[in-house]
Order: sequence, then C-alpha cells, then structure tokens
Amino acid sequence: MTFTEEQLRRVGPLWDRMLSHRFLLETRDGTLPDETFATWMRQDYLFVEAAIPFIAGLVAKAPRDHREELAGFLPALHRELELFEERAERAGVDLRGAPPSFTCHAYVQFLLATAYRCSYAEGFTVLYVAEKAYHASWKVVREGLDEESPWWPFVENWSSRAFGEWVGWLEESVDALAEGAGHQERARMQELFELTTRYEIAFWEMAVSGEEWPGIEDGG
Amino acid sequence: MTFTEEQLRRVGPLWDRMLSHRFLLETRDGTLPDETFATWMRQDYLFVEAAIPFIAGLVAKAPRDHREELAGFLPALHRELELFEERAERAGVDLRGAPPSFTCHAYVQFLLATAYRCSYAEGFTVLYVAEKAYHASWKVVREGLDEESPWWPFVENWSSRAFGEWVGWLEESVDALAEGAGHQERARMQELFELTTRYEIAFWEMAVSGEEWPGIEDGG
Amino acid sequence: MTFTEEQLRRVGPLWDRMLSHRFLLETRDGTLPDETFATWMRQDYLFVEAAIPFIAGLVAKAPRDHREELAGFLPALHRELELFEERAERAGVDLRGAPPSFTCHAYVQFLLATAYRCSYAEGFTVLYVAEKAYHASWKVVREGLDEESPWWPFVENWSSRAFGEWVGWLEESVDALAEGAGHQERARMQELFELTTRYEIAFWEMAVSGEEWPGIEDGG
Amino acid sequence: MTFTEEQLRRVGPLWDRMLSHRFLLETRDGTLPDETFATWMRQDYLFVEAAIPFIAGLVAKAPRDHREELAGFLPALHRELELFEERAERAGVDLRGAPPSFTCHAYVQFLLATAYRCSYAEGFTVLYVAEKAYHASWKVVREGLDEESPWWPFVENWSSRAFGEWVGWLEESVDALAEGAGHQERARMQELFELTTRYEIAFWEMAVSGEEWPGIEDGG
Repeated sequence: MTFTEEQLRRVGPLWDRMLSHRFLLETRDGTLPDETFATWMRQDYLFVEAAIPFIAGLVAKAPRDHREELAGFLPALHRELELFEERAERAGVDLRGAPPSFTCHAYVQFLLATAYRCSYAEGFTVLYVAEKAYHASWKVVREGLDEESPWWPFVENWSSRAFGEWVGWLEESVDALAEGAGHQERARMQELFELTTRYEIAFWEMAVSGEEWPGIEDGG
Repeated sequence: MTFTEEQLRRVGPLWDRMLSHRFLLETRDGTLPDETFATWMRQDYLFVEAAIPFIAGLVAKAPRDHREELAGFLPALHRELELFEERAERAGVDLRGAPPSFTCHAYVQFLLATAYRCSYAEGFTVLYVAEKAYHASWKVVREGLDEESPWWPFVENWSSRAFGEWVGWLEESVDALAEGAGHQERARMQELFELTTRYEIAFWEMAVSGEEWPGIEDGG
Repeated sequence: MTFTEEQLRRVGPLWDRMLSHRFLLETRDGTLPDETFATWMRQDYLFVEAAIPFIAGLVAKAPRDHREELAGFLPALHRELELFEERAERAGVDLRGAPPSFTCHAYVQFLLATAYRCSYAEGFTVLYVAEKAYHASWKVVREGLDEESPWWPFVENWSSRAFGEWVGWLEESVDALAEGAGHQERARMQELFELTTRYEIAFWEMAVSGEEWPGIEDGG
Repeated sequence: MTFTEEQLRRVGPLWDRMLSHRFLLETRDGTLPDETFATWMRQDYLFVEAAIPFIAGLVAKAPRDHREELAGFLPALHRELELFEERAERAGVDLRGAPPSFTCHAYVQFLLATAYRCSYAEGFTVLYVAEKAYHASWKVVREGLDEESPWWPFVENWSSRAFGEWVGWLEESVDALAEGAGHQERARMQELFELTTRYEIAFWEMAVSGEEWPGIEDGG
C-alpha cells in the first residue's frame, strides 16, 4: 500500500466528514444561500493569494526534478485568482473588502510556517492534501450542480481532468518522498496529513457558520 | 506619542475585551471551574513550548545588540515549562496527553510564520504584544486571587517586577524599531499588533469554551 | 538622484573593474581560451540552477504586486538552463560533471541566505545587482563578439532588449523599495549592493584563474 | 560503524590536511607571525558573532529534546566573543575595524543558508563538523604551545574537556539523526560533512594567505 493510500484510509472518517460537509452538499443541490457562497469566495480568494508564497516557499526547497513542475503551478494560481474576480464581478460580490476570517488566517499561517520550518517532504505533504481535498470536494459538487449555475466554473476548475493530473503528480511524488523518508520524517508527514484535513474541514465550516474571531462576537 | 502608546490606544477596545475576559475575572475571583483552568494549562504548556522556536527564529534575525537579551529569554521559557509541570503535578493535571486545540495550533503557526517570513521588526512586534498581554492579564488576576491559590505561581511569574522589566525592554525596543522603520514596514507592524491581540483573546476564549476543531464536534 | 543611481556611483570603481574584467574583454575579442569559457559555462550553469530557489525565496516574501512579475522569471531561468545545455552540447562541454567551485558555492550561499534571512527589499537588491551586472557585462561582450561565435546566444540572452526591460523593472522596483525603507534597512541594502558587485567580480575571476578550494591545491 | 566514524574516514585526507595546516603547526611552534594571528582573530571574531544566528536557526527547527542543550550554547558563544575581546585588547589588536574577508563571508553565508533551507539533521551536521574541527585543530596547537603564550586561552577554550563533552554530545546526536534519516537526507548530510571540512581548511588558509576578495587585488 502506498503512503497516500495508507493515510487516506487512516484519516477516512475525517475525509468523509469533509466530503459530506453541508457546504458541499448544499452547493451541489443548489440550496446554499448566496451569501454563504459569497463568504466562501471572499475567504478562498484570500487563501489562493496566500498559496502563492506557500508554493514559492516549497520551490525554494525543492529537489531539481520538482522545481519546474511546481513553479509551473504559480501561473495556475494567478489564473485561479482571475476566475474568482470574474465570478465575483458577475455575482456582484466585492472580493476586496473582506479581512481574513480567523480560520482563513490560521490556515494560511499553517501553510507558511510549514513551508519555511519543515522539510520539503513535510511541506509537500500539506500541498498534496490540500489539492487532493479540493479535487475530491468539487467532484462531490459536480455530481449535482446545474452546469448553468454561476458557480459551475469553480467545479470545472478543481474537478477537471487537468487538475486531476496535477493531483496525480502530487500523489506519486508524495508517495516517493515518503518512501525515501526516515521514520521520524514520515511520522511528521502523517501528522501533517491529518492536520491539513482538519484545516480543510474548518474552512468549509467557517463559510457556513459565519464565524467571528473567537471572543469577539461583534467582529471586534 | 510612542508607537506602543499609539497602538495600545488604537486597539484599546480589543485590549479591554481581553483584560475583562471571563477567564481572567473568574480566575481572579476564584470561581473558575478547575477543569477550565486545566484546559488552559495544557494548551498554554504547548504554547510555551512552541515559543522556543519562535524566539530562536527572532534571535536568528536579530541585530547584534538584541541577540544576548533575546537569547537570554530562552532559559526563562524552559523555567516556565517547569513551572507548568510542577503546578500540573500538584493539581493532578496530565499535561502530556493533550493535542493542541485549534486556536493553540493556529496561534503557534502565526508565531512561526511571522518569525520566518516577516522582517525582524515585524516578528518582534508580535513578541512584544504577546508578552505585554500576559503581563497585563495576570496583573488583573493578581488583584483578587488568594495567594494561597495553587495558581498563584502563575500570577507571580507573569505579573512580577522582573517580568515587567523584560516587557519594558521589549517596549523600548519595539518603539525604537518602529522609529527606524519605513512606512510600509510600520504599517505591517500595526497590523501584527492587532492580530496578536486578537489571537490572545482567542486563546482565553478557547479555554472557557471547550472549543473543538471547527466542523468536528466530537473531537474527530 | 534615485537609489540605484546613487549606489552605482558609489560602487563605481568596483563596477568598472567588473566591466573591464579580462574574461569579458577577451570573450569580446575572441581571444579567451575555450577551456576558460567552458569553466565559466559549467559554473554559471550551476549558478542559474541555484538562482531558482533564490527567486522562489523572494516570491515567498514578495508584496502582492511583485509576485506575478517575479514568478514569471522562473520559466526564464529554465529556458536559460536549456540555452546552456544546447550550447554545451554543441561545443562538446560536459555540464554535469563539475562540482561547484569555491566562489560559485559561496555566491549561491549568499543568495540563499539573503533570500531567507533578510527583508524582501534587501533580497531584492541582490537580485537587481546580479541582473544589472549581467546585462552590463554582456553588453561589453556584444561590442566586439562576432555574431557567428558559438557564444553569441549568451550575448543575445543577457544584452537583449527583453532582458533590459526586466532589468528596468527591477531598477524601478528597487528604487521604490529603497524610497519606502527606513534608514537601517536602506543601509543594509547599500551594503548588499556592494557585496553583490564583489561576488560578481569574484565569479569572473574564478573562471579565468582556474581557482581551487583554498588550501586544497590539487582539488582535494 | 557510526555515521561520524564513516564520514571522518571518508574525508580523512581533507581532515589531515586541515590538522597539518601551516596555521596550526606554526601557532603550535610559536613561529606564526603576530599579524597572521591577528588576521585570524579578527575574522574568527566575526565568524563567532555570525554563529549566533546560525545556532538560533537550528534551535528554531530542533526537536524538543535538543532545544535546551542547543540553546545553552548561545551564552557560550557570547563568552567566546568576550575571550576574543579580552585577548585582542591585551595584544593591541583592533577587532572592530575589519570587514569580513571573502572566505569568512562565504562560510557565514553557508552556515545561514544551511540553517534556513536544509533539514534540521543537515544543519546539525554542519554544526558538528565545525565544532569537531575546532576541537581537533586546537588540540594540535596544544601539543606544543607554551602555556605562557597570549594565545593559550584559545587552546584552553576549544581543546578543553568541557568543549570535548559538547562535541561528544554533538557526535552522538548527529549519529542518531543519521540513523533516523532516509537515504537522500543522509546523502545530503555526507555532502555537507565534506563541504564544512573544506570551508574549515579555507578559513585557516585565508588567515595565512592574507587573502583579498577575488579580482580585487588592492582590497577594492
């Protein structure tokens, strides 16, 4: 069994919880309130922006044979930002006004701290799980969402075959990195696998709960 | 007006909210449930442990005239860990079992990401606010807590004159750094000032709310 | 006077020494021994490879409005590597065999340490000087080199109008960063400006001197 | 055979070259020109200063059970600086005037880049080799130097039993880290082992050669 098979089995209950999150099911069924989707858009836009320094931080530590593929993902993130901007304009959502929510800010800090402080294989694990989670999540939405929906382009973006190939490369690569890792590094990769899954769930939850910063009920 | 005076005024409402947090008032009045204090102890123990790489990360970027003072704080953190261990044993609290809560994990990532990615003056701002907040918070507790309380040594630790002198050095230093900073760096220092205050409030809130990871009600 | 005008004037004697280095003049005049050019190729190939993590490290700290431009330079570096490979094959030079020379290794460490430890404006200064130096150096070679020379594509690469526009963007940007910097950060930018110029000279010198690691005359 | 035994055997010829370097033998025999020793003092003073951010960078990545021991080395470095200052004053050497030599600057960049970019085990390998090299080198000097020599306190500092115990802890620790490392990380540890040895030799060589920055004969 590969590392990713092993880990996806281990975090299975968390993974299922993520894929059956109300945000995904209601988006799929067309019953999610527009304002909830707008909240997600505003926060995920900030998250994609912050993914650029995260990926760059990984490129800075990458072995030679990963650099080109990984760096090639940076323009894809810039295109993703344009997708958000275009969709937001169409839906009358203002992306720029929003400060990061607590969960969005926290998740971004987790990405950055990992890229800088952990080994390449550890940081790469976080990237893999985040991308795999998005691919799987938007495939859930794809199963029911009307292709005429204004949110369809997000489905297209993350559940597409092209994105699936990127996730496939990440999967093979993380398996190879785990294969070459010592047992302590491998243990840290496992821990980060689960933590990333937890942050992914927290992100969907934040969108539907209208979360405030803890202890600051009225937004501070 | 110095930078810190200016900022403490600007974030005043947040700062007041922090100092009047239920965790502090009830600890002061001796009405906080033991289990709530135990939750805080377990999480703050993890936080102090993680403060060591944070401080070390700052030392790595520090100008020559800050290095010795800042590095001298590392043994103080090791003594703080011993204080937690000794108090926990006395109160029958097991410090080692607990995984980090969402807020604790997030706050630690924020410290680490800042130490690595931001400028020295920016990272130093976060350190100052966290230490100033603890000094001020435990002075609130001091106003009412019985000196016979098992928690008194925490009051002693953070509201002491010695700790106050350390905070004084941090305050003078951050003011000097802000004085020498360009306007963009100074703007980022201000943003981090507020963010750190928000994380401090979130930490007290986590202790009293018995917080779970978002979207994982039963602890996952 | 802009920051770059000021600094180019300040390091003028070093800059002149660089532009009149024997490596450049003899390449221009077609009198440089092939083996010397091959030494440079092998070492600069390693240097360009290492510039990828350096640029990525800068992207990881870049303000939003620099990220896309800067990340767009990564594919240019991959194309530069292909240029080396293609030229080397044509000239029968084996690029892969060579370990880094002392100066090449040292310069790479300087880039990486700067990207990680210094502020963005400081790291960006090093990038600007290195690129400006290459643009200026290969314009010297352009003045005399026969367009039929196998080395002409290097002249084309670094003295081209497109490369000049990139250097122009770097120049405007570093001037703006210096404008916004506090006096201490600006002083560090000046120091790095000179240091980078010194490393550039050392690199040409290494190619012509057939340098060994110091104290290891026979290559160790 | 442990990792360090294996590596010390592998780099044996380089290690021997280091221990029989003219700087060490002539210091031992009392025949080294005072000005050469002064050059070394000025540069090593800068090097010890820069070792502080290097060690701090390692502490920031260290596993919990290494942090206290490693952080405890920071005050030792401050005491080493005082030793230099005291010896320099006694010998009428001005430590403050000198800019770093090329080799000193390069070695420092190597330390910092490694601490930030490489894994903990890799950075720790560099620390071990540098300390082991100093311990071994000053034991060579100890064999002949007159205890009345003004340089004797340096011998005492690095060839002492206390320093030997520190090197012993580093040795056990690096062996354990290598044991737990995957084969790629271990290969990088080996490469860094040799590189550090080369930089150590370069440092002694710089002191005796009166090295200038390459290509800048008159000091630029």
